[in-house]
Amino acid sequence: MDPIRAAVVGATGTVGQRFIQLLSDHPWFEVTDLAASERSAGKTYAEATQWAIDAPMPDGVGAMTVKDAGADPDADVVFSAIPGGLAGPMERDYAARGLKVFSNARDNRRADGIPLVITEVNPEHFDMLEERKTDGYVVTNGNCSGIVATLPMHPLHEAFGIEAAHVVTMQALSGAGWPGVPSMQITDNLVPFIGGEEDKVETEPLHVLGRYSGNGKVTPAAFRISATCTRVPVLEGHSMALHLKLKGSPSTDDVVKTLSAYRGKTAGLGLPSAPERPVVYTDMADRPQPRRDRDAGKGMSVTVGRVRADPLMTVKCFVSGSNTIRGAAGQSVLNAEYLIKKGLL
Amino acid sequence: MDPIRAAVVGATGTVGQRFIQLLSDHPWFEVTDLAASERSAGKTYAEATQWAIDAPMPDGVGAMTVKDAGADPDADVVFSAIPGGLAGPMERDYAARGLKVFSNARDNRRADGIPLVITEVNPEHFDMLEERKTDGYVVTNGNCSGIVATLPMHPLHEAFGIEAAHVVTMQALSGAGWPGVPSMQITDNLVPFIGGEEDKVETEPLHVLGRYSGNGKVTPAAFRISATCTRVPVLEGHSMALHLKLKGSPSTDDVVKTLSAYRGKTAGLGLPSAPERPVVYTDMADRPQPRRDRDAGKGMSVTVGRVRADPLMTVKCFVSGSNTIRGAAGQSVLNAEYLIKKGLL
Amino acid sequence: MDPIRAAVVGATGTVGQRFIQLLSDHPWFEVTDLAASERSAGKTYAEATQWAIDAPMPDGVGAMTVKDAGADPDADVVFSAIPGGLAGPMERDYAARGLKVFSNARDNRRADGIPLVITEVNPEHFDMLEERKTDGYVVTNGNCSGIVATLPMHPLHEAFGIEAAHVVTMQALSGAGWPGVPSMQITDNLVPFIGGEEDKVETEPLHVLGRYSGNGKVTPAAFRISATCTRVPVLEGHSMALHLKLKGSPSTDDVVKTLSAYRGKTAGLGLPSAPERPVVYTDMADRPQPRRDRDAGKGMSVTVGRVRADPLMTVKCFVSGSNTIRGAAGQSVLNAEYLIKKGLL
Amino acid sequence: MDPIRAAVVGATGTVGQRFIQLLSDHPWFEVTDLAASERSAGKTYAEATQWAIDAPMPDGVGAMTVKDAGADPDADVVFSAIPGGLAGPMERDYAARGLKVFSNARDNRRADGIPLVITEVNPEHFDMLEERKTDGYVVTNGNCSGIVATLPMHPLHEAFGIEAAHVVTMQALSGAGWPGVPSMQITDNLVPFIGGEEDKVETEPLHVLGRYSGNGKVTPAAFRISATCTRVPVLEGHSMALHLKLKGSPSTDDVVKTLSAYRGKTAGLGLPSAPERPVVYTDMADRPQPRRDRDAGKGMSVTVGRVRADPLMTVKCFVSGSNTIRGAAGQSVLNAEYLIKKGLL
Repeated sequence: MDPIRAAVVGATGTVGQRFIQLLSDHPWFEVTDLAASERSAGKTYAEATQWAIDAPMPDGVGAMTVKDAGADPDADVVFSAIPGGLAGPMERDYAARGLKVFSNARDNRRADGIPLVITEVNPEHFDMLEERKTDGYVVTNGNCSGIVATLPMHPLHEAFGIEAAHVVTMQALSGAGWPGVPSMQITDNLVPFIGGEEDKVETEPLHVLGRYSGNGKVTPAAFRISATCTRVPVLEGHSMALHLKLKGSPSTDDVVKTLSAYRGKTAGLGLPSAPERPVVYTDMADRPQPRRDRDAGKGMSVTVGRVRADPLMTVKCFVSGSNTIRGAAGQSVLNAEYLIKKGLL
Repeated sequence: MDPIRAAVVGATGTVGQRFIQLLSDHPWFEVTDLAASERSAGKTYAEATQWAIDAPMPDGVGAMTVKDAGADPDADVVFSAIPGGLAGPMERDYAARGLKVFSNARDNRRADGIPLVITEVNPEHFDMLEERKTDGYVVTNGNCSGIVATLPMHPLHEAFGIEAAHVVTMQALSGAGWPGVPSMQITDNLVPFIGGEEDKVETEPLHVLGRYSGNGKVTPAAFRISATCTRVPVLEGHSMALHLKLKGSPSTDDVVKTLSAYRGKTAGLGLPSAPERPVVYTDMADRPQPRRDRDAGKGMSVTVGRVRADPLMTVKCFVSGSNTIRGAAGQSVLNAEYLIKKGLL
Repeated sequence: MDPIRAAVVGATGTVGQRFIQLLSDHPWFEVTDLAASERSAGKTYAEATQWAIDAPMPDGVGAMTVKDAGADPDADVVFSAIPGGLAGPMERDYAARGLKVFSNARDNRRADGIPLVITEVNPEHFDMLEERKTDGYVVTNGNCSGIVATLPMHPLHEAFGIEAAHVVTMQALSGAGWPGVPSMQITDNLVPFIGGEEDKVETEPLHVLGRYSGNGKVTPAAFRISATCTRVPVLEGHSMALHLKLKGSPSTDDVVKTLSAYRGKTAGLGLPSAPERPVVYTDMADRPQPRRDRDAGKGMSVTVGRVRADPLMTVKCFVSGSNTIRGAAGQSVLNAEYLIKKGLL
Repeated sequence: MDPIRAAVVGATGTVGQRFIQLLSDHPWFEVTDLAASERSAGKTYAEATQWAIDAPMPDGVGAMTVKDAGADPDADVVFSAIPGGLAGPMERDYAARGLKVFSNARDNRRADGIPLVITEVNPEHFDMLEERKTDGYVVTNGNCSGIVATLPMHPLHEAFGIEAAHVVTMQALSGAGWPGVPSMQITDNLVPFIGGEEDKVETEPLHVLGRYSGNGKVTPAAFRISATCTRVPVLEGHSMALHLKLKGSPSTDDVVKTLSAYRGKTAGLGLPSAPERPVVYTDMADRPQPRRDRDAGKGMSVTVGRVRADPLMTVKCFVSGSNTIRGAAGQSVLNAEYLIKKGLL
């Protein structure tokens, strides 16, 4: 098959850069267009961008000319790293022009008719795309912390039913983009506040774990989450403590077995970005650790460890996963791969 | 009054160093003796010690000769920074010889007849000392994280009654002593495991918040704590998220008022190490932060912020405080000051 | 004597904050006015400022109203933390209006008639102020790294004569202001480039060590410096390796004696900010270290250690000192104190 | 060809681990034996080792049994990560038993008859192996900083002749092994002292750049180096400022061309570990940086940038390269590959 022509919009930011890196040697996609704000338009990508990823900029990309995000992309698919607050109408406008849009922004999440999908968890929410009236559409990712939290919740919710969850996150610097967190703020320190984050962590997983009920609407899962979100001096990889109440009080052994057996709804589909294990269980006493586990499954696996009984609820565990790959750009790419298989792209 | 003669045992370690620093210009104590393990005995303190505190070693201390910890201290009071596992019999032996021992080790905590006290919270547990048969005694501190967690719990438990608590800690490097955590392990990383710590955080606060029931025994407070303990790349200051269930569902305003009004049971006693506010409430949106709040009350105040409603329990907040001053050496010194006032020292 | 009325201009930035902190309990000055850019004018200082110093904002300052920097300061002295590039005409304009200006900006350094002074080193350059035509004047500080390098050079140049110097710096994050260096850039990393810095380090020390030759002109010291300047993940305290060629090939012992004996030209004047030892010599094998030595002399002393023979030149050593106190605001305050004593303020 | 059977001795330390990682999928070698100290002997490798490399332990290695380093290795080649101080007689003893030993330890460096080789620079020093009397031999690497410094010196010394060099290093934490540098020491700090390091940096490059003069002896290059060595909070990648005096005062352009053209004496040999460019020149203004350039050439390339005129000497530049791959294990493997090609292994 010919590669699918993909535009990256918001290409100069950190999520845009991650899109370019992930798509640069992708077997199914070819980056044919880059767009960003007016300030960057007309410049080469190399001129317009402060490349912040440690791996070098892929060959050929630096010489591409950055378009204005308002122009028509020369592509069939748009991967959107447009900043929250600006993304809403822009993404819907791309869709109205017939483009398939895969977005990392918060703006269109949970809007009726717009799927918010973690591919392994709720691809049946894509069904709402069948009912759309235009050729184009918008598909959204969850928030980075929400994705990392939801993946291990999925098999536990399916197997037992989650009744309540406390989530305390320790989030990486890369989640704040560039220039992001000042070094003077975070060196020898942590910051117990990330604007808007706790609300997202308390609501988006319920939406993703919810049921598509037709007419573009989702019935969220019927439990509550309480979140505290903090920033720590770690470059990449969001970590979090989960304290979970499960129906039927399963043993920690049962929980470990359930997590270990999980393959998700991408199993067997041959999607290039789908890791064999979306959730990797470790029995090492002091893991997961963000620096050592963020590359699991090429950044697409979330690692879970320290599964133990919780004196107040049922079970507690510790979770860590890449926030810029699984928690952002990689998740969008995986959603697009799934829709190719499904014939919707 | 003449200064009270104090020995620091375990003087070469990080808690021992902190004792020496806090006692060096203390109005009521004078350091007359230093002791440590056999390996250090006979050397000068300067030779025997890798001074790890940023402030310089107090004048005169470097030239003192370190004794073997088994020898008789030339002092009336012993401040013990003996490592856990060794401290138990050594501290009881000092007490049997008539010395008053103030300990940071875990070994004698919660033993019958040995008070485990945070001065502002449960000084009435000192009553068990009245029943002792020897002149000497042992008084213990709680674990560093436990102390930081318990201080804000105290006024809330008194005002409303705590029914359950989730505690997720982000603990500083200084808590692991010297050499402690390898830099290769913790740079650009966090470690979600600290041996034995979660058990301490789940039990010691209940003991401290409990009631002395005579015969050297304490009836612990009747609620449960669930803890996750992690290590983060911060030099000093343990931080933690508290999610609390309170009786009667007080508003966050009531909680803030209660925390702000708290002065503890040292109020008005004129103890040199007692901060005016054992708990400092901040309404700054992104505080407390360990680097910026660890010096509050000269390291003896715990700072609490981000008080907000909890969707599962009643209230959540974020807490940070010095682990080597309030959480260790400073707490021992404050206990000793209180017993001077009470006439037991 | 009545306190001298001082305005801080550029008050909201990190150097401005340091001025406010240093002046807040100064025995000779009183902060009567704060000014900053248009954007901040009219706001209270608390509203206008992202306070970045770990110590709390001094009482009373937060409620002061920030003026526009173009307005007339209600003060006799201006401490200027105006950014380089803007400071030049603004500072000269204040002087034209009769104000005494003490500046940290690069703009007016080395201009004819404007002294560039490290108080202990070249206060005789103040003589050029006697020749001025207006009541006001501008006095400048050197660049932060240049000041730290120059202080130990001074006694060595006086005693032996420096013939050449290699300087390789490792500079702190606070030198870049706020937000300054992105945490994503400097975590687990260093950056071997600071714009314009090497030129300053190669020229300013020669000017400060030079001779006032009348008519507002300085004859620089007659040797050359080669500099490499880097940024490292340290909050505060610029460090540097000095490799020095000295006339007459003195022994390292002679160099140590010279450094240890140094008191500078502020000795005996009773200036509040003058440390007893502007240069502190340490014989500890692994010192100076920025975190442990930056507070020496309340941030006004530079610490020198590892004095040893250099196989190519004469001697090498390692130097560290506070870049925001000695290297910026504290140096301005000390210059002002000197001019008070001299009757020029 | 059949794979060559290789033992890793000192297998549990950080350099030993790096050997295992580099050899695990090497086309020419197969790890057939692991040895370490008595304490580890008899355990499985997984039990005996605190795996400190971020990449996971290669499959199959964890189950291998660790031998005592004194036993006969079941191998033809020994890669030695034995600690300095112990390595000397042990490595010579292996050689006496007919084994080919590639060592990272300092002990046998510069001994007569034992080549100290950076493959691209001085493979003709291997000629001394032809004169040996036993089947076995010992080949040594230089010190990690010395290797990183020497690679860019080589083409400049060949093209112009180096007359003098100032080297100021900023060395990574991984260079100190495990547990290595305490996090309490290096967080928000740097340490300007590494035991024995400056002497190595001042002498080993001269040996490597020297001429083999027969009878197992080397005539060192005839210039002098002055070194200051420091430790900075960077995980991996030694960085350094070089200030160089070159004969004939070449322009910076000539220096850049010489560095860019350099391919070293491995060019065209098809050695698996030889990077195409042993020295990578960058014209980016703020590079090299250790975190972003340490993976160049899979850790075998040293990156050089900021080439500019030196006001005292001829040219200055900044250099960074992997200390555990190029600076240790990878260098040993490359030496072994070269000797296979040469028929000496």
